[in-house]
Amino acid sequence: MSEALRVAVLGCGAVGSQVVRLLTEQSDDLAARVGAPVELVGVGVRRLDAPRDVEVPDGLLTDDVAGLVARDDVDLVVEVIGGIEPARSLILSALDNGASVVTANKALLAEDGPTLFEAAEKAERDLYYEAAVAGAIPILRPLRESLAGDKVTRVLGIVNGTTNFILDKMDSSGAGFSEALEEAQELGYAEADPTADVEGFDAAAKAAILASLAFHSRVTAADVHREGISDVTAADVASARDMGSVVKLLAICELRGDQVAARVHPAMIPRSHPLASVREAYNAVFVESEAAGQLMFYGPGAGGAPTASAVLGDLVTVARNRLAGTRGAGESAYADRAVQPMGETRTRYHVAIDVDDRAGVLAAVANAFADHDVSIQTVRQEGRGADAQLVVVSHAAPDAALAATVEQLRNMDIVRDVTSVMRVEGGDE
Amino acid sequence: MSEALRVAVLGCGAVGSQVVRLLTEQSDDLAARVGAPVELVGVGVRRLDAPRDVEVPDGLLTDDVAGLVARDDVDLVVEVIGGIEPARSLILSALDNGASVVTANKALLAEDGPTLFEAAEKAERDLYYEAAVAGAIPILRPLRESLAGDKVTRVLGIVNGTTNFILDKMDSSGAGFSEALEEAQELGYAEADPTADVEGFDAAAKAAILASLAFHSRVTAADVHREGISDVTAADVASARDMGSVVKLLAICELRGDQVAARVHPAMIPRSHPLASVREAYNAVFVESEAAGQLMFYGPGAGGAPTASAVLGDLVTVARNRLAGTRGAGESAYADRAVQPMGETRTRYHVAIDVDDRAGVLAAVANAFADHDVSIQTVRQEGRGADAQLVVVSHAAPDAALAATVEQLRNMDIVRDVTSVMRVEGGDE
Ligand SMILES: NC(=O)c1ccc[n+]([C@@H]2O[C@H](COP(=O)([O-])OP(=O)(O)OC[C@H]3O[C@@H](n4cnc5c(N)ncnc54)[C@H](OP(=O)(O)O)[C@@H]3O)[C@@H](O)[C@H]2O)c1
Ligand SMILES: NC(=O)c1ccc[n+]([C@@H]2O[C@H](COP(=O)([O-])OP(=O)(O)OC[C@H]3O[C@@H](n4cnc5c(N)ncnc54)[C@H](OP(=O)(O)O)[C@@H]3O)[C@@H](O)[C@H]2O)c1
Repeated sequence: MSEALRVAVLGCGAVGSQVVRLLTEQSDDLAARVGAPVELVGVGVRRLDAPRDVEVPDGLLTDDVAGLVARDDVDLVVEVIGGIEPARSLILSALDNGASVVTANKALLAEDGPTLFEAAEKAERDLYYEAAVAGAIPILRPLRESLAGDKVTRVLGIVNGTTNFILDKMDSSGAGFSEALEEAQELGYAEADPTADVEGFDAAAKAAILASLAFHSRVTAADVHREGISDVTAADVASARDMGSVVKLLAICELRGDQVAARVHPAMIPRSHPLASVREAYNAVFVESEAAGQLMFYGPGAGGAPTASAVLGDLVTVARNRLAGTRGAGESAYADRAVQPMGETRTRYHVAIDVDDRAGVLAAVANAFADHDVSIQTVRQEGRGADAQLVVVSHAAPDAALAATVEQLRNMDIVRDVTSVMRVEGGDE
Repeated sequence: MSEALRVAVLGCGAVGSQVVRLLTEQSDDLAARVGAPVELVGVGVRRLDAPRDVEVPDGLLTDDVAGLVARDDVDLVVEVIGGIEPARSLILSALDNGASVVTANKALLAEDGPTLFEAAEKAERDLYYEAAVAGAIPILRPLRESLAGDKVTRVLGIVNGTTNFILDKMDSSGAGFSEALEEAQELGYAEADPTADVEGFDAAAKAAILASLAFHSRVTAADVHREGISDVTAADVASARDMGSVVKLLAICELRGDQVAARVHPAMIPRSHPLASVREAYNAVFVESEAAGQLMFYGPGAGGAPTASAVLGDLVTVARNRLAGTRGAGESAYADRAVQPMGETRTRYHVAIDVDDRAGVLAAVANAFADHDVSIQTVRQEGRGADAQLVVVSHAAPDAALAATVEQLRNMDIVRDVTSVMRVEGGDE
């Protein structure tokens, strides 16, 4: 067997502690799969005396993280600190120093991926990040490798466990958003400050990474249209249920002609869609491609051990590449596609409107849609008198036209209230 | 860019014609992803004049397949002829000749994989076969690479589209097996001679491949316990429905202590299980591992284009490896685990029994289970008088003990008939 490969792990929190555990517990198996022993040579943290979920072997813990990365006997660096700095500088320094890198850092990749990819290219080293999207679910490797001979046309992902838990709770119990959020917080599925999850920032970072890989283009978090779930009401969820649908927070990446569209927003999908049955905090990514058709990848989207599993999978590949003196595919941005503005992206809307119950109302509402060249797929009339409601589902139209239609509806005399506006995905256009 | 990689495709039927089409249509994209042009240099078939689903470029079609493989300017060979011979000899000759090989041939791999793997090892060439299991669904690569740092403990797969179509039909319409089979044949989901599918041979081949990869051991089709679906009755399906379950043909691979268990049989799984919602001819593979937890991979399990997508994914990887002068992970049978006999494998049974409606019947039935050390999880009594029925679900026990229990029940005076016997999977033991 070859000489040992030397690994430094940066960060020993929820994910890092599980990476250290697996490296220690599975060392025989890892050696067999890599073809050489894999040796842990250092664990970088902020506070030397903080409690840890794993027993770090004696003498390996250090708070001189920059020094650990600068050591010239480190072959592989695992970055599981998170955030932009010092993670970025540490990764750049590791690559520059000749180490290969595995990271789970979606925020950094979505904000500044190209800088990292260029550094890896220049250093001729691997930079892998399967754990950055949908935790343990192997999705980046299938997109990058398994579908490399195919043409991906769309990716629909439930990539945030917190929001899926909340929406699932609202669907199954009829609870409102705040109530469901509170329960998620009590159970540890949502943080005290839930902004990053419920406002869609976390999902948008993942959408950027998915779109980049699926369409071989550079898409950053700033390119992703983002709407969270804090405005989703019990009425929206009930309205979806009436249509045989369910509300999910989706990360949507599409190839539209020569352009890429990437967005995160709540949407109604039919209960018959494979994504509809993704419950609780699970994640899933649904992929459509020209030859393979419809694929779905499902599993736990977070958690220390699941995420560490994805990190270790990358680590084995990177270690094998290193032994063989080669590298993985690297990033391919060869297609260099422009990002389509949200207003031009074709979407479908579901709109529920409280209306006056009198002749001509339906015609007036239909005219508002026609004014913006939006064609209607179905209209359902519910209730009578003071409870009269129209539920309209449109065909696909530019999002800006749909938004303008809703604006116009809100200003109409016969419309008492627009009670629910939500996009519709996963069905026919 | 580097010199072109030269590809020979053996077979131009359902899959081969789509491989040829993708190679031609996606050639720019392929070149970008591989880092060198990929050039089709020959297509081997049996009948030169047969109609083809694709226009094969002039002069490439040949019925001298052995000659094509023996050419010294072929870098990559795609085998999509199927069956044992001449496929095996052609693959061995290609490897021996220095070419890398991609195949979709599950029958050959399950029967004689080790011979092929050894030849690839000896020739220091890649042998990839993602398309052999579950068509377009990337499952072998995730098992082999993404989960390489984890420990897979169980694989449950719906890996045969024909039988899933039939069982789904029986579930949704109440049809019997023959009626559902006929419909599957009319729609092209089942062949005129459906034996390989309905008797589980195809699924058993895939189970052998999955078990080998998941547990790093050599498992061949002969090691897989196999039962088909031709004895599944409308009553079985209705009985499953009453329990909130659905009948699926499952390929089950488990790590049991130091042993590997691999089997294919119909089983009842709870409707809440992710596999339960796999409809029509779709496939899905559910994987349990220690760190990642529960993952599922879903998609079309067959069809020319989907299968060709998987072949092309492999082709890109193999081509990249070749350019880099390296190879993929190869087969790892390092764990060398024994295969557990079916009789010793722990399973759970669902048994429905028509009984005489009199005192002591339940005790007598319970005793039959106790006689074989099988503990009972639930008993449900249904009907009265001449319609009295007991439905028993056991806890896990050695399969032989469960079979012996059923045998004993059949011979009891108070038992008029054992109307349904089926294993139960996907719940608590
Ligand atoms: N948790 C998940 O389920 C999950 C899922 C997917 C991806 N990820 C990603 O994985 C990464 C790590 O997440 P996590 O949940 O493990 O975070 P965490 O529990 O907060 O752990 C962060 C670790 O980094 C260390 N650290 C923080 N700042 C540092 C600094 N300036 N210098 C050195 N060490 C520093 C901390 O040290 P101390 O312990 O000494 O404070 C801690 O050990 C993030 O990029 C996250 O997005 C996490
Ligand atoms: N079809 C699927 O959905 C699917 C899915 C997964 C895996 N697979 C696997 O893919 C492989 C191919 O399946 P397929 O459905 O494409 O089969 P197919 O439609 O029957 O095509 C077989 C091809 O092989 C050629 N061939 C047969 N015997 C030959 C011989 N002795 N010498 C040279 N060429 C010969 C045939 O030539 P002619 O055309 O001249 O007769 C034909 O082009 C099989 O291993 C199968 O298990 C298929």
